[in-house]
Amino acid sequence: MSFAFPIRVYWEDTDAGGIVFYANYLKFFERARTEWLRSLGIGQQRLREEAGGMFIVTSSEVQYLRPARLDDQLLVTAELAEAGRARLTIAQRALPAPAHRADAPAAALCTGTIRIGWVDAGTLRPARIPSSILQAIQHP
Amino acid sequence: MSFAFPIRVYWEDTDAGGIVFYANYLKFFERARTEWLRSLGIGQQRLREEAGGMFIVTSSEVQYLRPARLDDQLLVTAELAEAGRARLTIAQRALPAPAHRADAPAAALCTGTIRIGWVDAGTLRPARIPSSILQAIQHP
Amino acid sequence: MSFAFPIRVYWEDTDAGGIVFYANYLKFFERARTEWLRSLGIGQQRLREEAGGMFIVTSSEVQYLRPARLDDQLLVTAELAEAGRARLTIAQRALPAPAHRADAPAAALCTGTIRIGWVDAGTLRPARIPSSILQAIQHP
Amino acid sequence: MSFAFPIRVYWEDTDAGGIVFYANYLKFFERARTEWLRSLGIGQQRLREEAGGMFIVTSSEVQYLRPARLDDQLLVTAELAEAGRARLTIAQRALPAPAHRADAPAAALCTGTIRIGWVDAGTLRPARIPSSILQAIQHP
Repeated sequence: MSFAFPIRVYWEDTDAGGIVFYANYLKFFERARTEWLRSLGIGQQRLREEAGGMFIVTSSEVQYLRPARLDDQLLVTAELAEAGRARLTIAQRALPAPAHRADAPAAALCTGTIRIGWVDAGTLRPARIPSSILQAIQHP
Repeated sequence: MSFAFPIRVYWEDTDAGGIVFYANYLKFFERARTEWLRSLGIGQQRLREEAGGMFIVTSSEVQYLRPARLDDQLLVTAELAEAGRARLTIAQRALPAPAHRADAPAAALCTGTIRIGWVDAGTLRPARIPSSILQAIQHP
Repeated sequence: MSFAFPIRVYWEDTDAGGIVFYANYLKFFERARTEWLRSLGIGQQRLREEAGGMFIVTSSEVQYLRPARLDDQLLVTAELAEAGRARLTIAQRALPAPAHRADAPAAALCTGTIRIGWVDAGTLRPARIPSSILQAIQHP
Repeated sequence: MSFAFPIRVYWEDTDAGGIVFYANYLKFFERARTEWLRSLGIGQQRLREEAGGMFIVTSSEVQYLRPARLDDQLLVTAELAEAGRARLTIAQRALPAPAHRADAPAAALCTGTIRIGWVDAGTLRPARIPSSILQAIQHP
């Protein structure tokens, strides 16, 4: 039931070890969260201009399970795990994109739990998530 | 007793929210771990050439507590929390650099726990950390 | 007649000025070059394993004309401008993605000229581009 | 007579080719320009708050001459090449840091010419560089 977004591994994502640099999975996860929100009608630039707030990440827990390499095609998922008034918990995974004949589900390359909080764009102080946004996320 | 490494916040580190992008703390933490290892006589490029292995990150847990901004001067720490035969756990913090008259210790901007494992550079399979390296880390 | 590749602007691409950080256009250009090569049947990871060589960039000239912002949808182009035995010159542009009813072509946000050379993957010394690759690029 | 700033190559800077990714030299150049401005008493975050403007890059020309690798220590220079009322041209180089006994000057790894323009921070429209800044840059 999770949202899935395709991401290709480019030179910029790799390091001299020949694999994706660990910080870059947080970029991949952010892209997938952004597209998941967009799929629910939530554009972040517009939010900032209209609602005067934005989501910021408050914590991340990531397991790097198997390396991804240049040219690999990934599917990066985002799924609401928990919703509070000021914070959301998002479960995310980076999976190898399914091969042509995929008999078995692929094992995750990387899994993460990301907590994001709503803040006022000016003061960066925590605030309640606008109800229209919370509604869209909880009852898509 | 932890190792501390100064890091300045540049344009590349910030995002349109005006603050350091969350993935970039993992870059800062990696720089501080590298310099901590270097301070113990452990150069990673040389290790790879001579010992045929390298450290890779297996998990990260990060709390983003207070935002850092353009031009901020940080101190990023690295401290051995636990050492096993194939893995190390490193505790890390990003702190505001102390002001001229710092009466009270500054609150951390970001804290993290990073687990790294030793792998064969060719196969990327887990292996025992070479004893000379483990020795240097545990009895510096 | 140029190859065009869609790229979305995410938080990671922006800086505290609220716009895409200038170095990131080189990432966008590299992604588009990679996908252009892939569209011609040229996979870079496979090339490195099979032909023992890779393309590296030898020079870049970039004009930053108009800023791109968070959530913007871009089209990034790649077009062969000149082909030699060891080097290629690629003309690239980042354009705003066309709106639904685009009466007029959009002005470029960023234009560039990138020169890439073929090198031996081990020594990084310049070498002749394998003829099968040159053929695929010149007569697609 | 140019300003020089030390930069170490970390994992984040390298790619799967084992060398510094070409876009990252623009990060290195930006860091050196920032420190050069800071050495002249010009802080960019403060400028934005006080003068309501900022420098943005309008063009870059970069030659990638020799590869840099993980753990390499570089010196990155910045030197005023030309100053106009709204634009500056900066000449930059990335050099290998001098060895203990350097009999001959080291050949540059990367050279660049970067043009930056002053813009209003709100509208991003070009504007005259504040005279106090121009003064500090031209007569340091």
